[in-house]
Amino acid sequence: MALPCETSTLRSLIDEHLDTLIPLKKGPHSLLYEAARYSLLLPGKRLRPLFLLKVLEDYNLPVERGLDAACALEMIHTYSLIHDDLPCMDDDDLRRGKPTLHKVYGEGQAVLTGDFLLTHAFEVLAQSGLPVELITIIAKAAGGEGMIGGQVVDILTEGKESNWDTLLFMYLGKTAALFSAALECGAVISNASFDEQMALRNAGKYFGIAYQIRDDILDVTSDEKTLGKPTFSDLANGKSNCLTLFGREKAELLASSFREKAIDALPEKAYHVHELIH
Amino acid sequence: MALPCETSTLRSLIDEHLDTLIPLKKGPHSLLYEAARYSLLLPGKRLRPLFLLKVLEDYNLPVERGLDAACALEMIHTYSLIHDDLPCMDDDDLRRGKPTLHKVYGEGQAVLTGDFLLTHAFEVLAQSGLPVELITIIAKAAGGEGMIGGQVVDILTEGKESNWDTLLFMYLGKTAALFSAALECGAVISNASFDEQMALRNAGKYFGIAYQIRDDILDVTSDEKTLGKPTFSDLANGKSNCLTLFGREKAELLASSFREKAIDALPEKAYHVHELIH
Repeated sequence: MALPCETSTLRSLIDEHLDTLIPLKKGPHSLLYEAARYSLLLPGKRLRPLFLLKVLEDYNLPVERGLDAACALEMIHTYSLIHDDLPCMDDDDLRRGKPTLHKVYGEGQAVLTGDFLLTHAFEVLAQSGLPVELITIIAKAAGGEGMIGGQVVDILTEGKESNWDTLLFMYLGKTAALFSAALECGAVISNASFDEQMALRNAGKYFGIAYQIRDDILDVTSDEKTLGKPTFSDLANGKSNCLTLFGREKAELLASSFREKAIDALPEKAYHVHELIH
Repeated sequence: MALPCETSTLRSLIDEHLDTLIPLKKGPHSLLYEAARYSLLLPGKRLRPLFLLKVLEDYNLPVERGLDAACALEMIHTYSLIHDDLPCMDDDDLRRGKPTLHKVYGEGQAVLTGDFLLTHAFEVLAQSGLPVELITIIAKAAGGEGMIGGQVVDILTEGKESNWDTLLFMYLGKTAALFSAALECGAVISNASFDEQMALRNAGKYFGIAYQIRDDILDVTSDEKTLGKPTFSDLANGKSNCLTLFGREKAELLASSFREKAIDALPEKAYHVHELIH
């Protein structure tokens, strides 16, 4: 039986593994690796990889077995931030407390670095020896019916009034899909039963919605220093979100209720995942 | 034994399969699928998927077995064109004879559509039932040591004098890697011997270099209508290429010699691939 690690220890394991997966390179293309590392290795919460590894702990598996998949998720998350911050998207100057990638390396390079991280995630998964099913789960979560679909709606609804149905579609896609995939991948690696797999997947979905609503709230209640990114960015981009739709109080209630649903959905043995959600 | 098809028949098979892989969708994100189809279904030469299918024909396999992988290659090629045409990259207005995607759908949407096609290619591959090795081959070819690495160098050398070493690195990455992967994937699906696999891979590499040199030449000798994209684009972007380095005559000779090397590298039984190179 593998002993569970502190979250901070897991985060260090993730950071070290990311560092080896995208090393510095020599050659005329060295800047690509430098740029990828700039975005990838900034201190982040590493929530998606943590979720995956916590499932493994709940099933008494050594976390090392899930590191490739966990880091693939973080690469995909980071690529999505890089592209999302581009001038033609949200046009943000700050991310994880530092200038966004295109501010430092230029827009063309930022597009390519995002492309690289996405592609590399699949290379890592394909070479991991983990079940090919993980690639399907992650590609679906990151694709047109998941993250990218949500991003498209995010852009399309800019400057327009939205409604809860559209907002929920967007939250499910741009945020919940990848959390859901993280927990589902953990379940697949752990050989969890089909029911537990579905339960973890649903928990990730509900957590993701709660997380995105909290993110909307923090956008107007926190400050740039704490968040590491500009505040009031939805407002500046004329974006509808849970707050503009329902007001802060109802948004807080909604976030709490989805967090509760996430916890209720968890299989009983998912103790470490539970701990992370709280 | 499967009967070989005319190239035009194979092209139709590829087009039909692409059409089913990215169908029209209902929902708030329907524009994503519409945009992806706009770029993907424009008439193209379909060279990369053709190469893969021709290998299967050479090994007497039904081409249907390779359609998913062939179309994944075309999706990746198309995504690379979409991102390459962006204002922050080559800033081109015309592709395959039509306005480039960002001209029609906007830049943000073009970035996301490219991301979608790339992600979807891996989803299709993962669900194809084909060996996971194909995902490794294609991700490597499309990644930092392949296509994206080449693109990075392409951007970095803009407005600077280049040299043959750097140019070759760029050609190998941005063009040859995907041709090479197409032939190698065909070999893997066909269960070709290791030697034949390497031979096909090398043939693809040489063909890719020859193809890129021809592309450089056509950029100044053809016209916009024939090419379906603007001419003199390298010159306009201050890019070094084979022509600016060696002049037209030597560039023509180089292209021919790499084409010869490609043909020489082919395994004897690769009759249909040979035909396509000619």
